[in-house]
Amino acid sequence: MKAFASDNWAGVHPQIMEAIINANSGHQAAYGDDDYTEKAELRFKELFGEQTKTYFVYNGTAANIIALDSICNTFNSVICSEHAHIHVDECGAIEKHAGVKLLAIPSVDGKLYPEQIKDFVKADRIPHQSIPAVISITQSTEMGTVYSVEEIKALAILAHDNGLYLHVDGARISNAAASLGLSFKEMITDTGVDVLSFGGTKNGLMFGEAIVFLNPEIGEHVELYRKQGMHLASKMRYVAAQFLALFENDLWRANAEHSNAMAQLLAEKLDAFPAIRITQEVQSNGVWAVMLDEIAEKLLKSGFFYPWDERASEYRLMCSWDTTEDDINKLVANL
Amino acid sequence: MKAFASDNWAGVHPQIMEAIINANSGHQAAYGDDDYTEKAELRFKELFGEQTKTYFVYNGTAANIIALDSICNTFNSVICSEHAHIHVDECGAIEKHAGVKLLAIPSVDGKLYPEQIKDFVKADRIPHQSIPAVISITQSTEMGTVYSVEEIKALAILAHDNGLYLHVDGARISNAAASLGLSFKEMITDTGVDVLSFGGTKNGLMFGEAIVFLNPEIGEHVELYRKQGMHLASKMRYVAAQFLALFENDLWRANAEHSNAMAQLLAEKLDAFPAIRITQEVQSNGVWAVMLDEIAEKLLKSGFFYPWDERASEYRLMCSWDTTEDDINKLVANL
Amino acid sequence: MKAFASDNWAGVHPQIMEAIINANSGHQAAYGDDDYTEKAELRFKELFGEQTKTYFVYNGTAANIIALDSICNTFNSVICSEHAHIHVDECGAIEKHAGVKLLAIPSVDGKLYPEQIKDFVKADRIPHQSIPAVISITQSTEMGTVYSVEEIKALAILAHDNGLYLHVDGARISNAAASLGLSFKEMITDTGVDVLSFGGTKNGLMFGEAIVFLNPEIGEHVELYRKQGMHLASKMRYVAAQFLALFENDLWRANAEHSNAMAQLLAEKLDAFPAIRITQEVQSNGVWAVMLDEIAEKLLKSGFFYPWDERASEYRLMCSWDTTEDDINKLVANL
Amino acid sequence: MKAFASDNWAGVHPQIMEAIINANSGHQAAYGDDDYTEKAELRFKELFGEQTKTYFVYNGTAANIIALDSICNTFNSVICSEHAHIHVDECGAIEKHAGVKLLAIPSVDGKLYPEQIKDFVKADRIPHQSIPAVISITQSTEMGTVYSVEEIKALAILAHDNGLYLHVDGARISNAAASLGLSFKEMITDTGVDVLSFGGTKNGLMFGEAIVFLNPEIGEHVELYRKQGMHLASKMRYVAAQFLALFENDLWRANAEHSNAMAQLLAEKLDAFPAIRITQEVQSNGVWAVMLDEIAEKLLKSGFFYPWDERASEYRLMCSWDTTEDDINKLVANL
Repeated sequence: MKAFASDNWAGVHPQIMEAIINANSGHQAAYGDDDYTEKAELRFKELFGEQTKTYFVYNGTAANIIALDSICNTFNSVICSEHAHIHVDECGAIEKHAGVKLLAIPSVDGKLYPEQIKDFVKADRIPHQSIPAVISITQSTEMGTVYSVEEIKALAILAHDNGLYLHVDGARISNAAASLGLSFKEMITDTGVDVLSFGGTKNGLMFGEAIVFLNPEIGEHVELYRKQGMHLASKMRYVAAQFLALFENDLWRANAEHSNAMAQLLAEKLDAFPAIRITQEVQSNGVWAVMLDEIAEKLLKSGFFYPWDERASEYRLMCSWDTTEDDINKLVANL
Repeated sequence: MKAFASDNWAGVHPQIMEAIINANSGHQAAYGDDDYTEKAELRFKELFGEQTKTYFVYNGTAANIIALDSICNTFNSVICSEHAHIHVDECGAIEKHAGVKLLAIPSVDGKLYPEQIKDFVKADRIPHQSIPAVISITQSTEMGTVYSVEEIKALAILAHDNGLYLHVDGARISNAAASLGLSFKEMITDTGVDVLSFGGTKNGLMFGEAIVFLNPEIGEHVELYRKQGMHLASKMRYVAAQFLALFENDLWRANAEHSNAMAQLLAEKLDAFPAIRITQEVQSNGVWAVMLDEIAEKLLKSGFFYPWDERASEYRLMCSWDTTEDDINKLVANL
Repeated sequence: MKAFASDNWAGVHPQIMEAIINANSGHQAAYGDDDYTEKAELRFKELFGEQTKTYFVYNGTAANIIALDSICNTFNSVICSEHAHIHVDECGAIEKHAGVKLLAIPSVDGKLYPEQIKDFVKADRIPHQSIPAVISITQSTEMGTVYSVEEIKALAILAHDNGLYLHVDGARISNAAASLGLSFKEMITDTGVDVLSFGGTKNGLMFGEAIVFLNPEIGEHVELYRKQGMHLASKMRYVAAQFLALFENDLWRANAEHSNAMAQLLAEKLDAFPAIRITQEVQSNGVWAVMLDEIAEKLLKSGFFYPWDERASEYRLMCSWDTTEDDINKLVANL
Repeated sequence: MKAFASDNWAGVHPQIMEAIINANSGHQAAYGDDDYTEKAELRFKELFGEQTKTYFVYNGTAANIIALDSICNTFNSVICSEHAHIHVDECGAIEKHAGVKLLAIPSVDGKLYPEQIKDFVKADRIPHQSIPAVISITQSTEMGTVYSVEEIKALAILAHDNGLYLHVDGARISNAAASLGLSFKEMITDTGVDVLSFGGTKNGLMFGEAIVFLNPEIGEHVELYRKQGMHLASKMRYVAAQFLALFENDLWRANAEHSNAMAQLLAEKLDAFPAIRITQEVQSNGVWAVMLDEIAEKLLKSGFFYPWDERASEYRLMCSWDTTEDDINKLVANL
């Protein structure tokens, strides 16, 4: 029985697994000095632009924390949404590991808009206040919404005009690019993003994320921050090989388009029930819905998913690369 | 010309200075093993209750950070107001030094109310979320308001019912006690506060604050946290002697009542002008007022003070132990 | 061409890879709530004793840092050898992430002996000195030597008599157990070790290490420290499945015995040349040797390895689970 | 009865106290924007050179930690003597607060020599090793010895040739300058020191130390690090006024020459007893001596002092600005 709990409940896509198996031959230099890592880094340059520098880590928490650690001093703050994964789902890792303050801004759809944050980008009482150094957004957001290219550009301009960087938590970056029908370069590099946490695990990898610097002037010491951050993989070939497979024939896009389409289908099916109300625009691979608890209980018999906001009886249902129409039909069959 | 900028622009009260001079005789053991520190610690026991443990530090930032550091793990969070000094005026010291996350809650009058925070006291997704360990309030608040005994009790109950501690940032604790006409024991110990940052500098001391544990079960390792926090004073007698003088014949209350009264007078004088609107109830030694910038400019000629919220043309005027009626009359004379 | 650079240059053992492939079926709950993790945790209980608690992480740096973070306060210090991986090979991760001080003790063979460290286990000037909380040893050591059961017991007694814990960095724990011909329980649990970093990657895993608490009274909050330490794997089944395979039919021992035997063979072959001097007793899977640079250059043509101490012309050659007699013969054929 | 325990057991020199009293008049801007601080900063420029930047803090722990924090990244290490105050007497504050690793080098006289440390100034395995960024020495040392100008220059050259900075912990910097008969500029600026922790408390101040940057290219963000480091004094005038008095008519030198001379006298008196052996050259205000415990007990009746190395029956006796010949005569009268 498949779950709608999270896209990380799914396993590894067969083509990714094949790449792992193929990488398992003979010796390779450790700690990223291997052929696979070199090729994968080049692949990121092809996809994001020649100036791109890429650093692999095991998981998304590390991609976010190490990326921010490498561009912040401890006297800096990072502006993010109150729903940002770095604020609510990493157990204070940024504060502990990097000593950096978060400024969490209220948000109804998971997005930040320039109007909301323009008064926060400047510290006016130095040295009493932390100095904002980064605006961090999530694409697609923790609520399944997707920033348009114009929205990202506007945030990049606000950031750069005030001496800040724009960071994107891209745990589901492929779902966003698929949703917008854009290349990574169009969505990320060309909009002015400075550094991206590129997510692989939620889109069919076994493990593996990448810190991707688009701005060539930052990230100088990131290799040291990664090592200190405990995420320098010794057998890095097995991360790199997965990314090579993910980019082969745009597997990333196929997987993301599929899970996005499944979320659309799921939303349609749920929306057909008057007792269920979809609460967020379905722009990527998740569906947010308010429903009576007894409705939820019926659905949960056919596929586990989590409450999002228990007081509001709001639930989150996530689709994965391996979600099928049949899974969705089974889920709603009980209603 | 005296300023209304902050109560820390004032000098040292003559009786405090005399105590410092008197302490300057012969050798005393360093690092708090001196006679003055022993007496001052006893004095805190008399004022707050027998179980009280007191640790002197140089300033208020340290009192707050080290107090919280000593009762939090790095996986904990501290609930505070969005105006809390620990959140906006300590340059991220808590995040850097203690690695602790702050959960900053919106507030209009500087206070926290149980209703606002009751949904934040529990972490429901462990280990993904930081676990709240402390509710931190400021008494009197950063906006000059004063929690009633009932309000503190309600927060203490909420905290304790959920396994949290209640911390009070008492940079202006004397002004609050004077405002309420209560003893420290009535306001702090009897309401259930677990640990207090007791402020001296803003009430006539040269330097010196105290971390005061009312809850005998916490603070076991605070001496180590104080040393690591760089606030173990070698010549501690000069801090302790000041506190002894502050408590002698209730000098603390006289000073606080005076600055509170001056703020009342100032508010009355300002309130007489239709172009000036007092925005916070004047309960301690500060006045918050919205006024046209040209009005503010006239006032500033006779005594400096800071804008509080530039967009709203709101200003903060603070009175000190040495503010006189004459100072106030001079200030408003230009209007 | 295989290298003698490090045992992490080798790939994944076929049986481990097969286990990974077999685990890749359907959905599993994320973050360790999966069937594989449950089974693997039980397997550790069988191997180390019923009271054992096991927490998987991606790599050895994390296993060490998070284990120590979970049992130290920031005012604590950890006693280790000057050659300890935590001291020289983790880029200060322990100091940055856990804020803990290391006391690095000179060592000629990579081991610590009670006589050397008995004067360091007590802090005599509290709160000025950090308080030692842990003795951390590496088994097998960074110089290929192996502590005897008696030696570990003696360190455990010294630690426990003084209120410290004994931690073992077991990046090559299997090689040590194979070398001594003991079970993990005999070598680790029964000698009084409190917490072990169990290494998998260097013995044929793709990635994956485990923090293993033998002392049931510690590690209470380790899940939070692991999350904060950025090492809570979402698809944890792929770590757990590898460990299940490693323990199946004692694959761990077979791999370790093989690489140990290869190191013995290599040492014999090298020792036959008068221009090469073996400098450490070969007790696990590495060989330390002083040789003329021209000798080293000849060897390097057939298999890469690193200098250990350039000033002394000392080199380190490591054998892996996949090193063959033929590899060794080829290496020395040039001499 | 005066003690020989530490120079921080003495009180405040009368001229310093007078300066404090004189500074206690009217309002002054807080946090260092006062007239006294401005003048004192200028005074440091006169004494150390025009490019000097000075930042006052409360105590020596803070001067050291904040100075190092402001010039190190977390991936850096600091080379120091095994006796360095930052290593053995600050309870791991540098590791906790700055996340920086210390490389403690064995030393018999408290000094570091280029020959000892030249192999440690380069990290050869990046990113695995911390990168040395600073050589930190103490002048006068924790063992009372004094680096010559040539010795400091040699360390500065070694540091700069390898991209490191030279930091001086100058808790007793005045004693060293007095010992050498040099100005601060000759001893510190002209030898190539990059940053100095200038100590006041042990030479007659109530409290107050200064971080002094001689190298104009570093320390850009030190005001932020000081605030985060909890050492931005609100009533800073009382620190600055003390330094102004310390430099008035070279009071610093008079105090230091006196305590140095008292140490010489004390050493002579002790050396006259065959059962007492002076173990370090007496170059500043302390005497190190090995003596039978019964001898020590007799001395302790007339003035407290601490054991330095209990196993060796070695003791440390410190003289202060207020130590008199009479105090010394009384001390040895019992023998």
